[in-house]
Amino acid sequence: MIEHLFWLGIAGALIALCFAFVQTRRVYKFPEGNEKMIEIASAIRTGAGAYLKRQYTTLTWFFGIMFAVLGVLAIFGLVNPFVPFAFVIGGFFTGLSGFIGMKVATRANSRTANAAKDGLNKGLRVAFSSGTVMGFTVAGLGLLDIAAWYLLLRFVFKVNPDDIAQVMICFGMGVASMAMFARVGGGIFTKAADVGADLVGKVEAGIPEDDPRNPAVIADNVGDNVGDVAGMGADLYESYTNAIVATFALGYSAGYGFAGLLLPVLMAVVGIITSIIGTFFVRTKEQATQQNLLQSLHIGTFIAGGLSAVAALPLTLFVANSVGGAMAHNAWGIFASILIGIVAGFIIGYFTEYYTSDHYKPTRELAESSETGTATLMIGGISLGMKSTAGPVLTIAFAVISCFLICDGMNDFYTGLYGIGIAAVGMLATLGITLACDAFGPVADNAGGIAEMAHLPEEVRKRTDALDALGNTTAATGKGFAIGSTAFTALALLVTYKNVAEEALKKAGKMDRLLADGTLDLNIISNPIVLIGLFLGATLAFMFGALTIRAVHRAAQNIVLEVRRQFKEIAGLMEGNATPDYAKCVDLCTRGAQKEMIIPSLLAIISPIATGLVFGPAGVIGLLTGVIVTGFALAVYMLTAGGAWDNAKKYIEGGKHGGKRSECHKAAVIGDTVGDPLKDTTGPSYNILITLAATVAIVFVGVTVAFSLM
Amino acid sequence: MIEHLFWLGIAGALIALCFAFVQTRRVYKFPEGNEKMIEIASAIRTGAGAYLKRQYTTLTWFFGIMFAVLGVLAIFGLVNPFVPFAFVIGGFFTGLSGFIGMKVATRANSRTANAAKDGLNKGLRVAFSSGTVMGFTVAGLGLLDIAAWYLLLRFVFKVNPDDIAQVMICFGMGVASMAMFARVGGGIFTKAADVGADLVGKVEAGIPEDDPRNPAVIADNVGDNVGDVAGMGADLYESYTNAIVATFALGYSAGYGFAGLLLPVLMAVVGIITSIIGTFFVRTKEQATQQNLLQSLHIGTFIAGGLSAVAALPLTLFVANSVGGAMAHNAWGIFASILIGIVAGFIIGYFTEYYTSDHYKPTRELAESSETGTATLMIGGISLGMKSTAGPVLTIAFAVISCFLICDGMNDFYTGLYGIGIAAVGMLATLGITLACDAFGPVADNAGGIAEMAHLPEEVRKRTDALDALGNTTAATGKGFAIGSTAFTALALLVTYKNVAEEALKKAGKMDRLLADGTLDLNIISNPIVLIGLFLGATLAFMFGALTIRAVHRAAQNIVLEVRRQFKEIAGLMEGNATPDYAKCVDLCTRGAQKEMIIPSLLAIISPIATGLVFGPAGVIGLLTGVIVTGFALAVYMLTAGGAWDNAKKYIEGGKHGGKRSECHKAAVIGDTVGDPLKDTTGPSYNILITLAATVAIVFVGVTVAFSLM
Repeated sequence: MIEHLFWLGIAGALIALCFAFVQTRRVYKFPEGNEKMIEIASAIRTGAGAYLKRQYTTLTWFFGIMFAVLGVLAIFGLVNPFVPFAFVIGGFFTGLSGFIGMKVATRANSRTANAAKDGLNKGLRVAFSSGTVMGFTVAGLGLLDIAAWYLLLRFVFKVNPDDIAQVMICFGMGVASMAMFARVGGGIFTKAADVGADLVGKVEAGIPEDDPRNPAVIADNVGDNVGDVAGMGADLYESYTNAIVATFALGYSAGYGFAGLLLPVLMAVVGIITSIIGTFFVRTKEQATQQNLLQSLHIGTFIAGGLSAVAALPLTLFVANSVGGAMAHNAWGIFASILIGIVAGFIIGYFTEYYTSDHYKPTRELAESSETGTATLMIGGISLGMKSTAGPVLTIAFAVISCFLICDGMNDFYTGLYGIGIAAVGMLATLGITLACDAFGPVADNAGGIAEMAHLPEEVRKRTDALDALGNTTAATGKGFAIGSTAFTALALLVTYKNVAEEALKKAGKMDRLLADGTLDLNIISNPIVLIGLFLGATLAFMFGALTIRAVHRAAQNIVLEVRRQFKEIAGLMEGNATPDYAKCVDLCTRGAQKEMIIPSLLAIISPIATGLVFGPAGVIGLLTGVIVTGFALAVYMLTAGGAWDNAKKYIEGGKHGGKRSECHKAAVIGDTVGDPLKDTTGPSYNILITLAATVAIVFVGVTVAFSLM
Repeated sequence: MIEHLFWLGIAGALIALCFAFVQTRRVYKFPEGNEKMIEIASAIRTGAGAYLKRQYTTLTWFFGIMFAVLGVLAIFGLVNPFVPFAFVIGGFFTGLSGFIGMKVATRANSRTANAAKDGLNKGLRVAFSSGTVMGFTVAGLGLLDIAAWYLLLRFVFKVNPDDIAQVMICFGMGVASMAMFARVGGGIFTKAADVGADLVGKVEAGIPEDDPRNPAVIADNVGDNVGDVAGMGADLYESYTNAIVATFALGYSAGYGFAGLLLPVLMAVVGIITSIIGTFFVRTKEQATQQNLLQSLHIGTFIAGGLSAVAALPLTLFVANSVGGAMAHNAWGIFASILIGIVAGFIIGYFTEYYTSDHYKPTRELAESSETGTATLMIGGISLGMKSTAGPVLTIAFAVISCFLICDGMNDFYTGLYGIGIAAVGMLATLGITLACDAFGPVADNAGGIAEMAHLPEEVRKRTDALDALGNTTAATGKGFAIGSTAFTALALLVTYKNVAEEALKKAGKMDRLLADGTLDLNIISNPIVLIGLFLGATLAFMFGALTIRAVHRAAQNIVLEVRRQFKEIAGLMEGNATPDYAKCVDLCTRGAQKEMIIPSLLAIISPIATGLVFGPAGVIGLLTGVIVTGFALAVYMLTAGGAWDNAKKYIEGGKHGGKRSECHKAAVIGDTVGDPLKDTTGPSYNILITLAATVAIVFVGVTVAFSLM
């Protein structure tokens, strides 16, 4: 019986984790460099560890309270009894993914700097290897978690297969909660430190980036690890697992049974294997330009994507024909959807790259607009970001409708939706390598910082800078994947919410009344509540953006004041005769991030519950749809605007428009600073906001339906 | 028979126009000032006249072509035969409103400067009188147009009353087209000149605002008239007439017959009379602070609003009971909806004022964030703007649902919608005075410019500055009204679109097929086309924003280069021994605006048609809903962010955070410059985008349904 093929999921997960382990050993074998480098790396490690420890302590409280609340609700039958456990376990694994990735990244940074002494290729190898640890840890843990839960629920707890899908979606809420805190907290930390360091160090005092005299420099480097590594790992763990789980739920509704989960799980296994193959193609010549480096990463991901697409065909046909029925009927459509997902991922990646890389017109024109001052550079970036939304949105729109139609959605709604869900799985299957391409960036960034602080030769810094600039573009692409796949997943969650809401309404005996007076009517025209929900959803997206940007703003202002104070009060600091108090800045960032991450995260949790209590399920569906649509557009806008500003600055630093220290460069530094919270805190959090709001709505549907005013 | 009360509409319109005429005479009686002032005012007038002439020439082509296209469609029976005429007449009156207002404003500017010599109160009187000309011209022409059309169609052409509503909506498309061109073209002109003048003059050369040595200074003053006066007049003419017409269409569906139009028309008459009364309360003491001035305007608008609310009760009861039936049954609900509309307008106004006036915390905190540099000021403004969306959106959401429920929408959908429509009419009824409060700002701004250029005593400039700062806040409030009322109107248009689409589908014999295969299903969950439409709508809002911001950006860069060139090439200019070539800058702005306004405006027209052709009516409804929701949030965001930056700058100029020429002030000038296109070009165009897209969709429904792919 092919249901036992779920064990292949466990096997695939173990392969991924073993590969991650091998890569870790590989990274650790490289020497750490001289004493100064070891010392700096250790300071960064200590800071990052301290931050995570504090964050996990805070979150233990949050998860503890939520566990208790969910436990009480479970006792009253308002949620499934497995939910509290699923919630906590989901959160745990999400945090673990980020933790492991960060652990390795903080050990790879000085090693990358040291390896870069011997050349670019060696530097890339160390940094990329540490990126693969993150990529495969996330994929491995995600797959392990899902496959193990399924086997446990099905064969140990003998849960009715129909209920498994729902329990697993609830596990998604735990994942999304943890991802939200990790992404937002880490994002606030890293950008507060970065903005603070740049504003006083680069703009006011005129000292270079990563200069050891800057008191915020260690905090900045710690930030790269807790935000861009740990935060991003948690984020993509969330996208990956929720895509699989949401697809599963649709598969059940489509009548595909356990095969609806088996196919994405096996697809993930295929993706892990092809990603491992892809990593072997990421290498470059010593005289490589940045363009060569990018090509090298492209080749790796293309090979992984291409092989996955090829393998998807026999896999889909085998699974579908083994179970027969509707799934066999739609086998080719399902395969085509996987293909569409993979291709859509590359197209969205291309658009992001086009708008953020300085090899193309938009970023070059943006850099040029600095000639007429900071204001035109700002206006140009805002306009560029807004314009860049069209490509990804149209791609998603056409991909969604194509998958739906190809999978016979006109005849059977759920088979069509399954196509949409499986497309997201296809897009994310090669996460191992796409995340690796993304996660090596902050390692290279840190390596550059260490090279600067340890006074390594100029050429080392140049090499790490080349790696870092590359990381900027791949990071934008990686975030594009995360938000792109979320658009698909979110649709699946939306439908799941509708289904569970209907069940809850029936259970509460409210269904007839609601249908009669029209409040469950989901017609966008005839029920104003849907429309109001849409308005509320758009506002939620804007409010969330405002709060997270503001959080960075406030935390950064504290750092600015502290750095200024140290410059003023510590005698001999600017002359290099005294050491700044790095720990103070790390501590300020940690406290700032912990404090500021709470409200935006709670907003995501409370909004769907409050909307449900006031407006009922139709309002919640409007809210979720509104936040998906507006949140998606805002996310793309922020990611590309921020990326383009950053690269416009790098382009100018490369000698264009007067180069470093010119008026244009000053303007570009301001542009980069404004873009920082957009591209690294708020923009990449939108996909989590969407999933978290949707999963919370699903988990709490029993409560909101029982007590709703409408 | 009370249908003849429509003649009261004509009478009310004539009262408004007479009052505008009297105010014009009053303005003209004030002396123009010394020779230098007359000369400058004449240069501004010439520039503004030249711009409008050119704009109207371009638009004659546009309206000519559209008339021909609509004529051909009418011959083939795809649109109603009255449509081409309604379209052109709507456009004509819209243009006329802006033209008259501008004419008076360009004659009031030097008179305001001259009157300000004698004191603040006298200055306010002249500026405000010229604002009232604009306010009452718009209200008068709008009402005249609607009432005359109704009487003509009904009693001369004997059109079937059921068709009148539809013909009148088509007239809305002409209005919206003209408003779009006027707002966007004028907005690009004014902000290109303003940004260009500020960037080189204030930021680079360090000369004061409105310094006669700045070559772009006349263009800047011309811009105030063509953008902030003529553009805004056209914009609010659009909001005003479309609110009435859309309400009428819903009234017909609700079975209210002609009374569905009579009530809003009479309500508008009431508003005109109460607005005239309100204007008499706008006066202030000589030693008035800015806060006193604001209070004085508040008193005027409160009195007008309050009296309207009181008068609405007998009016509604009289009309409703005269026609009887459902309208009599809902009389109290309709009255309550009018009340809700008036109150919602004030609440939205309060929110806008709270976020943009420097008397409250947000703008003061924003000013404070300039202490840590330009970047934090930018981040702070973005976050402030995004946060400010919540209040207006929640107000609209609760107002909409309240009106719907109070007007018995649960039992009869259309009576509920009528409540939503009439709320917009209530909000806009006192347009005469609210627009006057808005339109005096640019006159005061111009007066300040003239005072500076004619070297009038310092205290004159101080007085005009006080008036100008006040105008900033009232302008934000006025734009809040425009976008707020559009949210109501847009819902009405959405439903109208659905109705005409269904008719068109029946006519084309497609209804059964569409219902059977689900593509006309408007359920937000079960039809992915609706969702795709929502995504497309959000993108349309973002793209429109990107294009208009970019247009300002490009036009401004040309001005920057030209001003720099003149500073460099004209010998003795900086020493005041030579005169700059003002006309060249005016010409550059005119050409830039003409060129750049085309594409964003066409985008609004083509999008609904293209979406209809590809995705059919369900896609169009998604598109319109998406652009309403996202456009509304973006508009509020841009209006408040821009207003707050502007006032933060003024706050600093008032001596806070180091005052003029400090580092904080430099940052604030950049913030103001970035906010300029947001608050004066893009933000205020969103309401027109929404209405234009909706009316185009309605007018072209015959075409899109006949040839749609789905």
